[in-house]
Amino acid sequence: MINTVRVVGAGRVGSAVTARLRERGVVLETRNPEVVLLCVPDTAIREVAEAVEPGPWVAHTSGATPLSALAPHHRRFSIHPLQTFTHARGAEQLDGAFAAVSGETREAEEMGHELARLLGLKPFTLADDVRPVYHAGAVIASNYLVTLHRAATELFDEAGAPAAALEPLMARTMENGFQLTGPIARGDTATVEAHLQAIRSRKPELEAMYRVLAETTRIVVAR
Amino acid sequence: MINTVRVVGAGRVGSAVTARLRERGVVLETRNPEVVLLCVPDTAIREVAEAVEPGPWVAHTSGATPLSALAPHHRRFSIHPLQTFTHARGAEQLDGAFAAVSGETREAEEMGHELARLLGLKPFTLADDVRPVYHAGAVIASNYLVTLHRAATELFDEAGAPAAALEPLMARTMENGFQLTGPIARGDTATVEAHLQAIRSRKPELEAMYRVLAETTRIVVAR
Repeated sequence: MINTVRVVGAGRVGSAVTARLRERGVVLETRNPEVVLLCVPDTAIREVAEAVEPGPWVAHTSGATPLSALAPHHRRFSIHPLQTFTHARGAEQLDGAFAAVSGETREAEEMGHELARLLGLKPFTLADDVRPVYHAGAVIASNYLVTLHRAATELFDEAGAPAAALEPLMARTMENGFQLTGPIARGDTATVEAHLQAIRSRKPELEAMYRVLAETTRIVVAR
Repeated sequence: MINTVRVVGAGRVGSAVTARLRERGVVLETRNPEVVLLCVPDTAIREVAEAVEPGPWVAHTSGATPLSALAPHHRRFSIHPLQTFTHARGAEQLDGAFAAVSGETREAEEMGHELARLLGLKPFTLADDVRPVYHAGAVIASNYLVTLHRAATELFDEAGAPAAALEPLMARTMENGFQLTGPIARGDTATVEAHLQAIRSRKPELEAMYRVLAETTRIVVAR
């Protein structure tokens, strides 16, 4: 049972994590914590880790950063909450989300799983060396979903269609278990060509994206 | 008030539309309908329209097909339900979805809006000549969302991470109003490079997609 944690960082992740640990009765203000949890930007992890007095477990919450960034500490692990966070919400953001836990020893993995469950996350173990592959997947699913929405909004604006109309469509696409419908599923290349021509004349900066996604859709659908 | 409609086509859209019109008490089996609604593949619209005896309103439910495909009919419009449909659901799929209505006369547009409301859709007017731009946006939002999910799933499979973990992430990304978080929002180019290197060695067929989305994200975020 983890009773004391020092959280470093009060960004979107650090704030949600601190709020949850406080809810759980974990002691946060202590000079001798069991775990020091670094919720800092990836680029700051090495420097902040070096400044931590050796002794406690040291962990980071980054998706792609290797455990070696936590040197000189050996009692170390990482716990990446697979979620997008906002300051507008609190601890409840952690509920229902998964967490990727990496550790180099069984004890380290167990600490990571325990902390994840304490936070209300569903932990799974992830090998340290595949974290960039995993994190690339997470970025595609979350960040590039934002990009698709912005691109679609720009095309709707061009056409004078209400962007609000996109949300029921995107929500149902998820609810239907990501079933592919539309022109590519139907093999309707004439419609895809009409889209490309329209994008080229109205929003040429989106043409490369549309084209690569059409091609990738054909590839992943064929599998 | 529209009382009689003949629906042509019993695919995903035709089935939902037929179920809804039946619920509303519209007469579907008639030799003299007020509206003939073509719920057929885009590539079949011209041929099917030509076979319809002139007289009633003739409409199609395609996103990108121009009204001219409904020749020789002059009393014509189009109504595109902005939704993804499945045979596993019924008329309720139409609830909450928007519909793009195009017509060449005020009367045609009014017919389209009336039919959309009868179906439980929220109509908006769309000019006929911008329909490919609009429909490209719809395909990006829905079909390419499927593609992102499949690509992310493939990378998670590579890493041994559970694909189920993607759903809370994608759902929250939408719930948070498509706020961009992650490495590109933070200007963290080292993480983006690590992703590209990992994709190149594990799933090279996804590299072009990742790269163009990273670039497009930088463009749309900068706006």
